[in-house]
Amino acid sequence: MEMNFNQHISGQFNADLEAIRNHMMSMGGLVERQVNHAVQAICSGDTQLADDVIRREDDVDKAEVAIDNECTQILVRRQPAASDLRMVLAVSRVVRDLERIGDEASKIAIHTLEVKDSKNPQFCQQAIRYMGEEVVKMISGALDAFARHDVEGAIDVVRTDKLVDKQYASALRELITYMMEDPRSIGQAINILWILRAIERIGDHARNISEQVIYLVSGTDVRHSSLTEMEETAQKED
Amino acid sequence: MEMNFNQHISGQFNADLEAIRNHMMSMGGLVERQVNHAVQAICSGDTQLADDVIRREDDVDKAEVAIDNECTQILVRRQPAASDLRMVLAVSRVVRDLERIGDEASKIAIHTLEVKDSKNPQFCQQAIRYMGEEVVKMISGALDAFARHDVEGAIDVVRTDKLVDKQYASALRELITYMMEDPRSIGQAINILWILRAIERIGDHARNISEQVIYLVSGTDVRHSSLTEMEETAQKED
Repeated sequence: MEMNFNQHISGQFNADLEAIRNHMMSMGGLVERQVNHAVQAICSGDTQLADDVIRREDDVDKAEVAIDNECTQILVRRQPAASDLRMVLAVSRVVRDLERIGDEASKIAIHTLEVKDSKNPQFCQQAIRYMGEEVVKMISGALDAFARHDVEGAIDVVRTDKLVDKQYASALRELITYMMEDPRSIGQAINILWILRAIERIGDHARNISEQVIYLVSGTDVRHSSLTEMEETAQKED
Repeated sequence: MEMNFNQHISGQFNADLEAIRNHMMSMGGLVERQVNHAVQAICSGDTQLADDVIRREDDVDKAEVAIDNECTQILVRRQPAASDLRMVLAVSRVVRDLERIGDEASKIAIHTLEVKDSKNPQFCQQAIRYMGEEVVKMISGALDAFARHDVEGAIDVVRTDKLVDKQYASALRELITYMMEDPRSIGQAINILWILRAIERIGDHARNISEQVIYLVSGTDVRHSSLTEMEETAQKED
């Protein structure tokens, strides 16, 4: 009887863990679409799409609060230990980064609406499209790595973030050149600057999600660590 | 005997709660100094002070990880309920915002080092000084409100954040004008742009800390709420 009871408890506990992971994954899907649409909106000048992104930010915020609550309830009611505890903490940190990615997608959409009416050419279109595609892949790469407990996949995302940072620095130099050549375009260019910055920040948050994969698998807190330190942690795991 | 045991447990529990609150407050003091020094560094061109801020960011990061761990341990071991649970959750969210404020202080210091050698005049000095002083007051105001469970004090911080946002928008317009008048100054001006942006973000994080005061006292999660909604929540509290 007692064994059945324990099995029941542990079955319910596993179901709870499964639930927060699934909710996190569907929030991840929503956020990935938001970034994808925001980048499409700026690249094609589609203001309808930009409006949609801004409107759906509320859903992202609600998902964060709901999943964060679920995590707290599990911590308090089930007192998880070891790898279960790491799963709950990792999910609660990942949803926080997903919410911030949602914020950045919404900023891209807002600045898209501010540039649309201008007759100036749009700067850095190629960089925006390229970096935009990279960070969308980083988000799905980080979430896939989480689902598969795949440390190597997570480290790949951290490597891609270094590339995106370089592209960002180069796009910024390009933008400053445009501004110097045509000072009348500065107002316009500042909007593009915020958009580039938002994309670069999305890359940082995807990197943070990957750090939680390493924490989940190895138990090592690699926040504020360098890529080399992460690679060392991963090797110890093998 | 059992009562003594319970008293002991509950005494230890209160000591744990007291400890995380104290650690949060001293981390708050450290972060407030970081912002204060970063603003002083850019206003006076003191590169030594900027270096100090960058070097001390590590202490802020370590404090976040340590306090976050303490909070998790309390959740798992003591299964707090009601207002105790809210205290632990609020502290863990506040330290996250404090860490991000530390990040922004460090960004200010980094851009200070980038402008120091330039022969161009520094733009927006007055706005930087004024906004910088405001956000330092906001951080200490939000932490004081936390310590005193003072919802009115917390709402004052949210009000000040609206003012800082306006000052930021106006400083941005001023900066764009300078850039148009003297395109050779654009590289320099972009550094000032990032500094203004970092100060504005610090205001947002101080606002987030205030939202946790409202959560702590009223149990209402006011993240993603407007000022009016917060004022309504506070009135229900009275």
